[in-house]
Amino acid sequence: MTIDRIQADHYRIPLPRPLSDSTHREIPGFELITVRVTTTDGVVGLGYTYTVGRGGRAILALIEELGEVLSGADEGRIEDCWQRMWWALHWVGRGGAVAFAMAAVDVALWDILGRRAGLPLWRLLGGSNPKVPVYAGGIDLYFTLDELLEQTRGNLDRGFRAIKMKVGRDSLDEDVARVAAMRKFLGDGFPLMVDANMGWSRHRAVAAARALAPYDLGWLEEPLEPEDVEGHALVAAEGIPVAAGENFHNPAEFKPLIEAGGVQFPEPDLACCGGITPWMKIARLAEAHHLPVTSHGVHDLHVHLLAAVPNASYLEWHGFGLDAFIEHPLTIVDGKVTAPDRPGHGVALDWKGLDRLRA
Amino acid sequence: MTIDRIQADHYRIPLPRPLSDSTHREIPGFELITVRVTTTDGVVGLGYTYTVGRGGRAILALIEELGEVLSGADEGRIEDCWQRMWWALHWVGRGGAVAFAMAAVDVALWDILGRRAGLPLWRLLGGSNPKVPVYAGGIDLYFTLDELLEQTRGNLDRGFRAIKMKVGRDSLDEDVARVAAMRKFLGDGFPLMVDANMGWSRHRAVAAARALAPYDLGWLEEPLEPEDVEGHALVAAEGIPVAAGENFHNPAEFKPLIEAGGVQFPEPDLACCGGITPWMKIARLAEAHHLPVTSHGVHDLHVHLLAAVPNASYLEWHGFGLDAFIEHPLTIVDGKVTAPDRPGHGVALDWKGLDRLRA
Ligand SMILES: [Mg+2]
Ligand SMILES: [Mg+2]
Repeated sequence: MTIDRIQADHYRIPLPRPLSDSTHREIPGFELITVRVTTTDGVVGLGYTYTVGRGGRAILALIEELGEVLSGADEGRIEDCWQRMWWALHWVGRGGAVAFAMAAVDVALWDILGRRAGLPLWRLLGGSNPKVPVYAGGIDLYFTLDELLEQTRGNLDRGFRAIKMKVGRDSLDEDVARVAAMRKFLGDGFPLMVDANMGWSRHRAVAAARALAPYDLGWLEEPLEPEDVEGHALVAAEGIPVAAGENFHNPAEFKPLIEAGGVQFPEPDLACCGGITPWMKIARLAEAHHLPVTSHGVHDLHVHLLAAVPNASYLEWHGFGLDAFIEHPLTIVDGKVTAPDRPGHGVALDWKGLDRLRA
Repeated sequence: MTIDRIQADHYRIPLPRPLSDSTHREIPGFELITVRVTTTDGVVGLGYTYTVGRGGRAILALIEELGEVLSGADEGRIEDCWQRMWWALHWVGRGGAVAFAMAAVDVALWDILGRRAGLPLWRLLGGSNPKVPVYAGGIDLYFTLDELLEQTRGNLDRGFRAIKMKVGRDSLDEDVARVAAMRKFLGDGFPLMVDANMGWSRHRAVAAARALAPYDLGWLEEPLEPEDVEGHALVAAEGIPVAAGENFHNPAEFKPLIEAGGVQFPEPDLACCGGITPWMKIARLAEAHHLPVTSHGVHDLHVHLLAAVPNASYLEWHGFGLDAFIEHPLTIVDGKVTAPDRPGHGVALDWKGLDRLRA
């Protein structure tokens, strides 16, 4: 069968409370861009991507161009569709906003393939283990310590058995004090990660890796700007494993960072690296380098990908959760979620609820 | 003074005859996106960027977001404005379409600075030599040999004393035959470059570099996809200098390629690498590595930049020339053009003529 039409929609979703990290400071809401791909025989696949508040209209315009590019294409030749999209928008692409647009379409194509096959994505993609450990990704840099601990209590009550917190306050001492308080609160051995969201200079990042060494951190995420490959390797050499990749929108960016020893937990985000097709390749690249893979954002989709591969690390439970607009949100049981067995990704959105938030 | 408003406009400009290269096959026209930045005291700066046919609407939407980001900013603190744009759209940016949007705005800010100072950009940026050698960048892969030679005759008549032709035909023998014919036609010592537009595999690119070695080529451009840093170094090791960079939309992409010895003629395009601000940094990076810098596209703007730096190589005279819509097109005299002495970049567009081509 072939692609009949691609419909894209754009929503602005306020967050219950503004979130904060060292790059974006306050994030009052996010943009959701959805794609529905309809085939000539009437199958509809759903895809989506998101932004931290800007760029949604551009992504929408790019998806409309992708609709022209893929009109009449065999929707089951996903790699061929992916390459067509990549090259049709190569001049303005190679990552950036184009990778978001491609991602939304690519997810919809995989959804169709799963629906046609009657298989959930995690089985379609190879099928490793549907039970995936999950962590709470706190976006909490400017929370007071009390707010941070209160949020953590809530996360433990919800079933999380691993937590990530933000670092990157003005003084490193503040960061260390907050991490020390969290370690004390959670107890020895509780998986705790930190995320600097590119907020540091090389010097500060190395100093932070040293100062945070006593707190048995699972990883130190995005200590530096994503372009600084050598800098990541310097930080990793201090001992805490480094996680990075959410800002890589060209899938080829992972290779030099992995080869330089600058990342121990590659963290691609399918919603902004071009979709499931490149995410799986990045996971295989990590496996070939004897590394795990973790995820960023859109946990309802990533749960399938981590359940598919043998080198899965944690699933990030993202702070922008779409739970309020999703028919079957994931449930956390003793620190794990289970990839659903519904065909495709199995995510159904509440279109009526979303309609009130149309951009 | 500060920025009062940013107006963006979008045009589709047909080419007199469709152009062809190994990536885009036929290019029937291009998109022009213009920006006019108006300051609170009424100075207007002009910037523009272009696409090979897709992505213009997305760039327009991004420029509108940049208008919000820069509203009220001191337009003379260009680096500060640039960083604001970079970080405001970082999540959907780091190159791609955002780099085009930023470029158009950045050019307008430099134009304002030059106008206020009463200086042409080439002096404002340091002032090296206003006379810049220029080459004709042919986009002619699917021209017959007769058409290619006819085009070349025309280019010689127009004053060009250096020429670039496309390679990347289905068989390498064809490429070699066409280059041999051009070398014979132009004579020994005439500067001739070739451009493969990423059309080759590593194996083919190395074979081509060997097969083309006898023809004394000035450079071999984009033998491979821009992501393949090691591959570029392999090709360069065969002896013909490699030019690359028109597809780098994140300025940081130049560093690893330069350090790997994969490029001898860095070729940033200010219209798609974020503007004049990063172009100058790339030129300085090249200088620090004892390399020249050349340009791609928008020759009416690049003439100033090459006239400003001490390591200038050729200016590309681009096939998408806007000459028909420009008040003072550059004139070629014995293989050189002269950077104008009008304040700013000195480019004035024919808005009335463009209006008929509004997208
Ligand atoms: Mg992060
Ligand atoms: Mg070229």
